[in-house]
Amino acid sequence: MNLDDMILISVDDHVIEPPDMFVGRLPAKYDADAPRLVHREDGTDVWKFRDTVIPNSALNAIAGRPKEEYGLEPQGLDEIRPGCYDVHERIKDMNAGGLLAQMNFPSFPGFAGRLFVTEDVDFSLALVRAYNDWHVEDWCGAYPGRFIPMTIPVIWDAELCAAEVRRNAARGVHSLTFSENPAVMGMPSFHDEFWNPLWTALCDTNTVLSIHIGSSGRITVPAVDSPPDVMITLQPMNIVSAAADLLWSRVLKDFPDIKIALSEGGTGWIPYFLERADKTFDTHATWTMQNFGGKKPSDVFREHFLTCFITDSLGVGLRHEIGIDNITWECDYPHSDSAWPNAPEELWADFSKWNVPDDEINKITYENAMRWYSFDPFAHVAKQDATVGALRRAAEGHDISIRPRSHQVIQPQDKLEQFRLRARAALSNATPNR
Amino acid sequence: MNLDDMILISVDDHVIEPPDMFVGRLPAKYDADAPRLVHREDGTDVWKFRDTVIPNSALNAIAGRPKEEYGLEPQGLDEIRPGCYDVHERIKDMNAGGLLAQMNFPSFPGFAGRLFVTEDVDFSLALVRAYNDWHVEDWCGAYPGRFIPMTIPVIWDAELCAAEVRRNAARGVHSLTFSENPAVMGMPSFHDEFWNPLWTALCDTNTVLSIHIGSSGRITVPAVDSPPDVMITLQPMNIVSAAADLLWSRVLKDFPDIKIALSEGGTGWIPYFLERADKTFDTHATWTMQNFGGKKPSDVFREHFLTCFITDSLGVGLRHEIGIDNITWECDYPHSDSAWPNAPEELWADFSKWNVPDDEINKITYENAMRWYSFDPFAHVAKQDATVGALRRAAEGHDISIRPRSHQVIQPQDKLEQFRLRARAALSNATPNR
Repeated sequence: MNLDDMILISVDDHVIEPPDMFVGRLPAKYDADAPRLVHREDGTDVWKFRDTVIPNSALNAIAGRPKEEYGLEPQGLDEIRPGCYDVHERIKDMNAGGLLAQMNFPSFPGFAGRLFVTEDVDFSLALVRAYNDWHVEDWCGAYPGRFIPMTIPVIWDAELCAAEVRRNAARGVHSLTFSENPAVMGMPSFHDEFWNPLWTALCDTNTVLSIHIGSSGRITVPAVDSPPDVMITLQPMNIVSAAADLLWSRVLKDFPDIKIALSEGGTGWIPYFLERADKTFDTHATWTMQNFGGKKPSDVFREHFLTCFITDSLGVGLRHEIGIDNITWECDYPHSDSAWPNAPEELWADFSKWNVPDDEINKITYENAMRWYSFDPFAHVAKQDATVGALRRAAEGHDISIRPRSHQVIQPQDKLEQFRLRARAALSNATPNR
Repeated sequence: MNLDDMILISVDDHVIEPPDMFVGRLPAKYDADAPRLVHREDGTDVWKFRDTVIPNSALNAIAGRPKEEYGLEPQGLDEIRPGCYDVHERIKDMNAGGLLAQMNFPSFPGFAGRLFVTEDVDFSLALVRAYNDWHVEDWCGAYPGRFIPMTIPVIWDAELCAAEVRRNAARGVHSLTFSENPAVMGMPSFHDEFWNPLWTALCDTNTVLSIHIGSSGRITVPAVDSPPDVMITLQPMNIVSAAADLLWSRVLKDFPDIKIALSEGGTGWIPYFLERADKTFDTHATWTMQNFGGKKPSDVFREHFLTCFITDSLGVGLRHEIGIDNITWECDYPHSDSAWPNAPEELWADFSKWNVPDDEINKITYENAMRWYSFDPFAHVAKQDATVGALRRAAEGHDISIRPRSHQVIQPQDKLEQFRLRARAALSNATPNR
């Protein structure tokens, strides 16, 4: 096998929602109150919903731009690649990046769809359903076999959430984006029976609970004046709290078919975490009354958790300590951690470094993703057309060059100030949108 | 080399302070108001200081007890090994455990000495100094060469703290226990110039800032109803926030001689963390304006940070990805993670598993600790008397058997309730003692 022979299914990418996504999808009485994209005088575009304004920060749609332009400042749609919000352009970008398929997390509603929570339950539910219909029909539906469909939750009501999971599973959806810690969102925690209807629906429909880093709306910043690099460094590993919280919970014991994906959580820290969990069990299970029926926590982890990495050389090296059937890869397009369009080269370098055999490469790059997410792209795309090499040949002529920035250039000092404002909001009691 | 030939210096153990520690050490006017150990009707002993009551929880003095007795319930001094609070008995326990030397963190005042903060600055300072005098003279001074001395900080005042560091360095102290996040204690963060006098004093005196997990008083519990195993699993890795916060801070750039120990932080997650930090630098340094003078964050980490592990097989395997000169070992006596008196056997098993060569074993077990902490036990103890085998021979006849519990036996359900109370306090705005 060589680089061009890889088949890449990415389990974590992002869609920047297009302005027309709600058109025709809401009951007419809600049209005037629906979220809308507003073009501002400074050239940026923001989503507005009632009192909430959600800019699209530059780090969230950085694909194809030089590093000098990274930052948290708001952007306009005309400054980002059309592949961020236009599915036809997205497919061209995916082809250029050698990507057979992707799973796209939401942007402006937040990873847990929290934005749509209002005092009007019917309106909120209509928004969630409209979002999911748009995602399944317009986005994923436009190119069968190219997207792992994933819907957003009815985060305020476990019964309604379960019903929405079932409604979507009936049309082939097997992934639900969710909060990595509902308790910090003011909801019952993972340990509360409140969520039982949802766990039942997930198990019944073979739907994966995909918990993305940052999905509770809390970002880890040790202090309000911590440099932004601190937050960025800590981001993936933060999911360890959710991993521990669920690993030891009654959820796995009472719902043995539950599957959880630690989206964008990275992999290199997992072997340490499993060693620590097993040691904790050996030392403390007598008084904490934990019982996994003779299994160790690390065994239980491998039955229930899917991990993924963007760039994580160490994780590739430690793949057997993680679980070769528990690792997937992600491109993270169009966020700043993504190496698009050169992600295949980055990934192949690590496979080569560690002499990973072909069968293990295939598990990591696509087979595990297919099995965990009940996704079969080969029903729509022939395998010989699905490789990095074949897709890139199909993309020949597609412009992947850097385009000039259309609006003001922000100075680093101002970018840092943007970050400080965000850190202050995160550390105050104010609730960030995601 | 075999197991008996190892020389063990542990960089993280704990003293349970004895009742008479303040006797004769405070100005007479403060005697009545000093912290005191109170024996309660239920057989437990608690430290009382003004309105604060600090029980000694069972997990904190578990050495030599069966796992069935682990828990957070308060204990009496007569239920724990005398080695917890009596230095002569401690030495016997160290010998039985094959330990040449130890560094002992405080218990009832908190790792950052927060308990001693009062409205009366003179009184507070007298308490800090009395504590440090007791630690250096009575505890460490009783057996030269057997303890790495470490003092507690004047946590509310950087100038006074610097002066106390200098006072202690003059008598051979090169370790300061400190908070891993002063900002969550309501103090200026690591990034504030407030601390400059302290950083200067640490550099001038070659004193290591030893930041123990949990030292800010914040414990990570995802939700109030998370099982205790979640908190225990997450404890070591939590130090990653402090590691990131300091790694990217101006402290390392402005004070190039500063040295920081991530006490009880474990090691197996460090290689992932360093890979992530380097990736963050590559991707974001343009806008975050980070500059390490041509070095990578992982280089800078190895210049400034000392890591340590109790049991961490993966970390031993990855020792070169961590930094062979940056790893030390700890026994954690008398806490529940400690394998005392069988710690040498546990450690040796991992050295054997990974075929660690003798020179690397020596770095991990004692040479790194000696260099980082400017500690030379061999000025007092001949090397041939310092090995695991020699010390254990010296301890022959010392009783290390399990003794019957003297007071009530707590049922697991009640132990879990104790934990829930603690989790609730940690997640509320209430400030736990440590």
